[in-house]
Amino acid sequence: MQRIDGRKNDMLRNLTFTRNYIMHPEGSVLIEMGNTKVICTATIEENIPMFKKNSGEGWLTAEYSMLPRATATRNQRDISKLRNNPRSVEIQRLIGRALRASIDLKLLGERTIMLDCDVIQADGGTRTASISGAFVALYDACQKLVSNNVIKKSPITNFVSAISVGTYHGEAILDLCYEEDFKAGVDMNVVMTDKGEFVEIQGTGEHSTFDRKLLNEMLTLAEIGNHEIIRKQKEVLGI
Amino acid sequence: MQRIDGRKNDMLRNLTFTRNYIMHPEGSVLIEMGNTKVICTATIEENIPMFKKNSGEGWLTAEYSMLPRATATRNQRDISKLRNNPRSVEIQRLIGRALRASIDLKLLGERTIMLDCDVIQADGGTRTASISGAFVALYDACQKLVSNNVIKKSPITNFVSAISVGTYHGEAILDLCYEEDFKAGVDMNVVMTDKGEFVEIQGTGEHSTFDRKLLNEMLTLAEIGNHEIIRKQKEVLGI
Amino acid sequence: MQRIDGRKNDMLRNLTFTRNYIMHPEGSVLIEMGNTKVICTATIEENIPMFKKNSGEGWLTAEYSMLPRATATRNQRDISKLRNNPRSVEIQRLIGRALRASIDLKLLGERTIMLDCDVIQADGGTRTASISGAFVALYDACQKLVSNNVIKKSPITNFVSAISVGTYHGEAILDLCYEEDFKAGVDMNVVMTDKGEFVEIQGTGEHSTFDRKLLNEMLTLAEIGNHEIIRKQKEVLGI
Amino acid sequence: MQRIDGRKNDMLRNLTFTRNYIMHPEGSVLIEMGNTKVICTATIEENIPMFKKNSGEGWLTAEYSMLPRATATRNQRDISKLRNNPRSVEIQRLIGRALRASIDLKLLGERTIMLDCDVIQADGGTRTASISGAFVALYDACQKLVSNNVIKKSPITNFVSAISVGTYHGEAILDLCYEEDFKAGVDMNVVMTDKGEFVEIQGTGEHSTFDRKLLNEMLTLAEIGNHEIIRKQKEVLGI
Amino acid sequence: MQRIDGRKNDMLRNLTFTRNYIMHPEGSVLIEMGNTKVICTATIEENIPMFKKNSGEGWLTAEYSMLPRATATRNQRDISKLRNNPRSVEIQRLIGRALRASIDLKLLGERTIMLDCDVIQADGGTRTASISGAFVALYDACQKLVSNNVIKKSPITNFVSAISVGTYHGEAILDLCYEEDFKAGVDMNVVMTDKGEFVEIQGTGEHSTFDRKLLNEMLTLAEIGNHEIIRKQKEVLGI
Amino acid sequence: MQRIDGRKNDMLRNLTFTRNYIMHPEGSVLIEMGNTKVICTATIEENIPMFKKNSGEGWLTAEYSMLPRATATRNQRDISKLRNNPRSVEIQRLIGRALRASIDLKLLGERTIMLDCDVIQADGGTRTASISGAFVALYDACQKLVSNNVIKKSPITNFVSAISVGTYHGEAILDLCYEEDFKAGVDMNVVMTDKGEFVEIQGTGEHSTFDRKLLNEMLTLAEIGNHEIIRKQKEVLGI
Repeated sequence: MQRIDGRKNDMLRNLTFTRNYIMHPEGSVLIEMGNTKVICTATIEENIPMFKKNSGEGWLTAEYSMLPRATATRNQRDISKLRNNPRSVEIQRLIGRALRASIDLKLLGERTIMLDCDVIQADGGTRTASISGAFVALYDACQKLVSNNVIKKSPITNFVSAISVGTYHGEAILDLCYEEDFKAGVDMNVVMTDKGEFVEIQGTGEHSTFDRKLLNEMLTLAEIGNHEIIRKQKEVLGI
Repeated sequence: MQRIDGRKNDMLRNLTFTRNYIMHPEGSVLIEMGNTKVICTATIEENIPMFKKNSGEGWLTAEYSMLPRATATRNQRDISKLRNNPRSVEIQRLIGRALRASIDLKLLGERTIMLDCDVIQADGGTRTASISGAFVALYDACQKLVSNNVIKKSPITNFVSAISVGTYHGEAILDLCYEEDFKAGVDMNVVMTDKGEFVEIQGTGEHSTFDRKLLNEMLTLAEIGNHEIIRKQKEVLGI
Repeated sequence: MQRIDGRKNDMLRNLTFTRNYIMHPEGSVLIEMGNTKVICTATIEENIPMFKKNSGEGWLTAEYSMLPRATATRNQRDISKLRNNPRSVEIQRLIGRALRASIDLKLLGERTIMLDCDVIQADGGTRTASISGAFVALYDACQKLVSNNVIKKSPITNFVSAISVGTYHGEAILDLCYEEDFKAGVDMNVVMTDKGEFVEIQGTGEHSTFDRKLLNEMLTLAEIGNHEIIRKQKEVLGI
Repeated sequence: MQRIDGRKNDMLRNLTFTRNYIMHPEGSVLIEMGNTKVICTATIEENIPMFKKNSGEGWLTAEYSMLPRATATRNQRDISKLRNNPRSVEIQRLIGRALRASIDLKLLGERTIMLDCDVIQADGGTRTASISGAFVALYDACQKLVSNNVIKKSPITNFVSAISVGTYHGEAILDLCYEEDFKAGVDMNVVMTDKGEFVEIQGTGEHSTFDRKLLNEMLTLAEIGNHEIIRKQKEVLGI
Repeated sequence: MQRIDGRKNDMLRNLTFTRNYIMHPEGSVLIEMGNTKVICTATIEENIPMFKKNSGEGWLTAEYSMLPRATATRNQRDISKLRNNPRSVEIQRLIGRALRASIDLKLLGERTIMLDCDVIQADGGTRTASISGAFVALYDACQKLVSNNVIKKSPITNFVSAISVGTYHGEAILDLCYEEDFKAGVDMNVVMTDKGEFVEIQGTGEHSTFDRKLLNEMLTLAEIGNHEIIRKQKEVLGI
Repeated sequence: MQRIDGRKNDMLRNLTFTRNYIMHPEGSVLIEMGNTKVICTATIEENIPMFKKNSGEGWLTAEYSMLPRATATRNQRDISKLRNNPRSVEIQRLIGRALRASIDLKLLGERTIMLDCDVIQADGGTRTASISGAFVALYDACQKLVSNNVIKKSPITNFVSAISVGTYHGEAILDLCYEEDFKAGVDMNVVMTDKGEFVEIQGTGEHSTFDRKLLNEMLTLAEIGNHEIIRKQKEVLGI
């Protein structure tokens, strides 16, 4: 099978991280994964949601949104519909869970980290790019807390990255662009740590069901992809 | 390890389906899975969302909600917060995808099936119970379309059910009640067909990451659980 | 005149109360009045609305809602319209006023009782069934406050029940089912205490105006109905 | 008993109607009832709500609102809370039902009459003043339909007015001002036609329950009050 | 050129202020500018927005709204659309800025003045009439603070008024009525103090651009108009 | 006086336009004005708002928003508050009016151009940068309509740009950065055409009033700035 852009089944698209892309936030990154571009920022806030009050722990949460013309046709803004886009709700919950797996909330202390992932150009894989990019912004924001003597030790415990895998004409492929994603039989997003363990697996048979064999092939590709992404995260962070 | 309610690791809780529980809908079921109780109804509407107009296909979608006191403490209604509960948004998208895997939208024709899953009492596993229960309501509603000569052949192509699996003190367990779910290391919801294939897998390491071995143990339990649920669905439907 | 279901003009439909229907709330009841079924729950909250702060008094309020398929055709959820259903707003204000007439807010102390009335199946008279059912849930929740030594004496001062009366082909009838209600000339809801006094009277000439004579006939039927409902409330509460 | 403003128990406050108070609407009135002042306008719209399509009938509905400083302390606007004021919802439904009793929807034809009642100064009895005032605006708007040859015959079939009655220190009194209303044991709003029949009765024992005797005394006062209001409506309309 | 209502280019419409128009607010005025009528009220609240906490300063803000039939065709209420009317948002921000130029927030102390401008009849120039009218209500409310010994000295530092100017058939004209405004080439609103200085200038070439010469002609008319309005404000306030 | 960044009073900040910054829209630009960065996109939609139906004319409108961390502290998204940011409402109305002055709606035909201006980094002058950038995106989108033979002739009739001017320590200065803007006595935004005429002038004495002399000085600076911006627009568009 020939992939749309000529990649082999186990190849990622071009991946770049531009650190400190925006000047105001405590951490900020532009992640580009092929034509998918997401601005990820990390904000430290010295307050805590009600359910964490007096817990001695901090909190980390995320918001995900797309600019109206990140896509081929224009999407109305959420505020025009007075309603969070349901797909965005699902995605920002995933981003929050994924990144909470990378930090120790006790070490963070009673403060909140808000990760904003704003897609400025979409070509498939925006949710996994958001996770991989947000990790870098988060890492920098945590470093700033340490260098400003707010906390002694960075709360980062793991690297976390994410990648999409799927099936196309019956074969497992890595890092689907929009056109592949649109036609994929199965679509799976896999979040992993630098220890090679899973944080979250979400696989959906959009157009066909799948068995354990196909699942295992996709997970193997996801391991390859996440390993490479974490290598690049470390490279850009100079670790 | 001793489970909270004395079950073995691969045992489901008590499961009953009460068909035609509500008199008005085209299909309706009360599913009870231990102390979890969900009213599932299927409504046929002779219209179609914009994006399906002139497609020759129908659509199936779902809504999920909890009564305020389905839980130990009272939850405000969504309308009081002018906002869909984000967890409910995530769940109803899952229910919709799961059940769309059970029907042929072309056979359905240009009409919409709305599945309403209203949890009246919650004790863990409400999303998977909603899927398993909604299937029965959906089946009955489709039969009614056939018996009323609206369509010639039921659009049902597969049975679909769902069950939660997870890890508790390092062991894989089936069908978590709330107390187990609350303390689970990993929490996974698995939707399957009567052919034994996967429709959707959503696994999250809420409190710990997981490896392939544990994943495989959990999937095996999920196969056992879904097999049993589908047996009961067929029993109650007299098939 | 022959009534639709063969009842005499002064007869109630079949009435049952299932106490402790839901396991989590402080009080809960399933009331069935013919085919009308309402889940009523009472929640005690240890806080108080702003306007009652430092009054030494508690508060009691109510919410009323219908499941989407409680009715013959599906109703959109309030949250889908971002707007409380106006009819529900009117009804929940009535339920709140009615039940506040049954308790001494000073004896309750600075806490709030929230009554949730969720109609799972509707066949006329849902607002009056909600009141009659909510009273039983309220009674149980107050008993729990006493048995848990939160307060010394139950704040319940009266029994309260409600019933609909109306006119159909010029005759006064008791406890209208949906079909009767739909065609009724006058529709009146009457809330009463076990002392036989009125708490609230709401009568509307939906399709025709009415005079004092007809009003008096309807009130007499309402007295008969409420007397019987309160007898059943006492029976189920073992008083 | 001495009333706050020296009136006898069966006396109305000063009542004036200023016709054509606002220049744009098809009908408009400023009603002043003591210190209560309401601008009532009637708008004719050449469209019809969905549920009346192809019925051959028109529709009449109402909206009720207060300016923020109509009252002693400032009320936030509904839009600031993104929520219709529940009391206003209850009132505008009452106004709509009351005025629908005054017209023949078939004679109106497939058009909608919207009555807007905006309280600019409140001193009790704003809902009944709104009904009595809106009738005059409605009457004028219907006359305009006839004089413009849109319809042949005015759809007005009855005069309709409304007044509040209540109990104060155990005595029945007519037309309560805010201070009386605030302290009233029972509060009842009575809508009547010029034939002396009831359109709607809403009586609430806010601070005490009531028996039939007291009910009858209040209804007698309401008859006196509504008779006088309709006399004034006819006077101002030159009938 | 002949103006629609025969006025000369530099003439205001008939202008009247009715002080204490509404009985409850701390200051209230009905301003009539030709057929444009606005109820302006000033409310003093003993609290302060978050961003002014512990600043030693007070705050002044404004809300602007129209009754549904203030205009030739009915406008839906904001709450019906769950959205502030964008034009109203723009206007109330202008009113707030304009009137803040008339007071010393330090002299006011940590309290808030809310100005409500509700247009009951619109015929052009509602935003400028709101400013000119709100000033009078504000003045009276500040006097009340002094006479009640809440503060020692009125925080009023300037008189403030506003007027519209524009171009019609190429000529600059003062105080446009709706019909003139609708056809105006340029539309400019000018807020000024009694010292003859500008507080705000907002000029828009709705239907044509403009040069400095035309701008200067319009500003000269605005000076004439505002001078006259402030003269009337002083007259009605007895200064 | 020394400006914060050493510029002379009549100097613009560094200005660059990156055309085709986003791949999907019909026109897109990243405008950078010093540290202020705005993504402007132009979308052509083949429909028209209700009020333009059958007018033979098209429509142009704009939306303006900031990413949460475009600013020094994080701003909640509009959807989190269920309310359009009032400042954004004011700005997007200005952008719409400004750009409508650059096109002939008749030549556009019955289609809508939506301009989205999303600030990704803010350092003062975001509204004027949005206008200047949006013009370039609009120009490109119109060229595409012509090159795709949708219309024969570009509807662009003027170049339009905008710049802020203000007073700082009593002197008029051009193109204020955030720190200057924050402390400015007067703040004025001036929209102009390439013919040197004014489209819109909005000047506010935030901290002090102003006279004609100062107004004229500011307008002269605005002419210099807009002249330079339009030169750059032409340069980047190759005209």
